[in-house]
Amino acid sequence: MRFRHHVFVCENRRDPSDPRGCCAAKDSHAVLDAFKGELHRRGLKGKIRANSSGCLDNCADGPSVVVYPEGVWYGHVRPEDVPEIVESHLVNGVPVERLRLKKYD
Amino acid sequence: MRFRHHVFVCENRRDPSDPRGCCAAKDSHAVLDAFKGELHRRGLKGKIRANSSGCLDNCADGPSVVVYPEGVWYGHVRPEDVPEIVESHLVNGVPVERLRLKKYD
Repeated sequence: MRFRHHVFVCENRRDPSDPRGCCAAKDSHAVLDAFKGELHRRGLKGKIRANSSGCLDNCADGPSVVVYPEGVWYGHVRPEDVPEIVESHLVNGVPVERLRLKKYD
Repeated sequence: MRFRHHVFVCENRRDPSDPRGCCAAKDSHAVLDAFKGELHRRGLKGKIRANSSGCLDNCADGPSVVVYPEGVWYGHVRPEDVPEIVESHLVNGVPVERLRLKKYD
């Protein structure tokens, strides 16, 4: 496996008039930045990767994050949640239950 | 697992003067469109998802595609390769060896 974990953060942006909303309007770019910063700070660059993605089809629960290869989904993720996801899930292998979208297990 | 397979296609775009090049300049948007069209045509929407992604850190071998949860990477993917990837890999579980980036296994 090229990356121990590969994290995708939805950065889809829709027109403000669209009733579905979008992750970009919920500040998902700051979530992606937080992942990139935290991984860099911990020397995990190259081992664990955080990427922008298009719409993950989970708009109501955004900002949406999915972590592969395990296929764990998170919703309503804020930048301040990211250190906990990195520490608990990506480093220690224990997903953060309070943020998980268990409907996708 | 929410999606049987989740396909990410790099759509990163760099300035034309950047020596690293980028997948967008190699027509990766047409590759993503081909995946979306093929999945729709086969009634696989909702079961297998194709997403745009940011830079997958594989610029020299782009357009880059990664398929999760299995973590199979493809390089130099052209739109005309997509029906074979869908049929062989996503439907029948047999990755397309001639396009795989085996260095990432």
